[in-house]
Amino acid sequence: MQYFEDVVIGQPRDIGSHTFTEAAIIRFAEQFDPQPFHIDPEAAKDSNFGGLIASGWHTAATVMRLIVDSAIEVEASLGSPGFDNLLWKQPVRPGDTIRARLTCVEKTPSKSRPDIGSGRFLIEVFNQRDELIMSMTSIGLMRLRHPPQG
Amino acid sequence: MQYFEDVVIGQPRDIGSHTFTEAAIIRFAEQFDPQPFHIDPEAAKDSNFGGLIASGWHTAATVMRLIVDSAIEVEASLGSPGFDNLLWKQPVRPGDTIRARLTCVEKTPSKSRPDIGSGRFLIEVFNQRDELIMSMTSIGLMRLRHPPQG
Repeated sequence: MQYFEDVVIGQPRDIGSHTFTEAAIIRFAEQFDPQPFHIDPEAAKDSNFGGLIASGWHTAATVMRLIVDSAIEVEASLGSPGFDNLLWKQPVRPGDTIRARLTCVEKTPSKSRPDIGSGRFLIEVFNQRDELIMSMTSIGLMRLRHPPQG
Repeated sequence: MQYFEDVVIGQPRDIGSHTFTEAAIIRFAEQFDPQPFHIDPEAAKDSNFGGLIASGWHTAATVMRLIVDSAIEVEASLGSPGFDNLLWKQPVRPGDTIRARLTCVEKTPSKSRPDIGSGRFLIEVFNQRDELIMSMTSIGLMRLRHPPQG
């Protein structure tokens, strides 16, 4: 995300990877999404998914961590008003390693505040078999490095 | 979410509330969203938000917990392929209590599997001042209680 001027439209950027353990999947889901197929390996076998899978919110939050670690400039970021089109396309299972890619698809200077701008980012997440497992579009608000002098 | 037949379109349903502590906000954000305005009360004072705020992913995951605890029938739920239009409209600060409301806006039997159907749910989240702080639309997949006999 960096400063507004630094963001290049249409240039995919790898933002790192993360491996999900069974313990971490269960720990997250016990707190936030305690459905049997997220917290109980035995019950999960009989579910529609055939085994334990990570909460989609765990996957999404993990991708946020990758974004923070690799693509956000602390001084430039002003947070996000939301996102769109979040699709969980394939389950994430214990031992799976996901990697994410961030592409700015649009950026717009603010009309009301000349010192900030927003970007629309496509986030694509793949597993170790290069299957797309999640995608979403996120809005990020950023400061300008060199705001126009009023 | 219950069984497909049980879901009534257009009937808002209160799904409970949750109070955010500063400790929980920091704990979640240290793991998933370590931006200064989520993890450092002092640095947060100088941020655009004027104080510590919860990660939007923390809010979203907490709402998922409310949904699981109050609106999902374990035997009926088949998970979710995704959601849409997630908007963080107001920050959640330490001590804030959020409450959520779930409204089915559409339900559709599956064309390929007569034993399941999907619902589109509007989720609205308010704080203790009745300000809308988050909204999103989620898809839920459910079994039919009485699938048509083939």
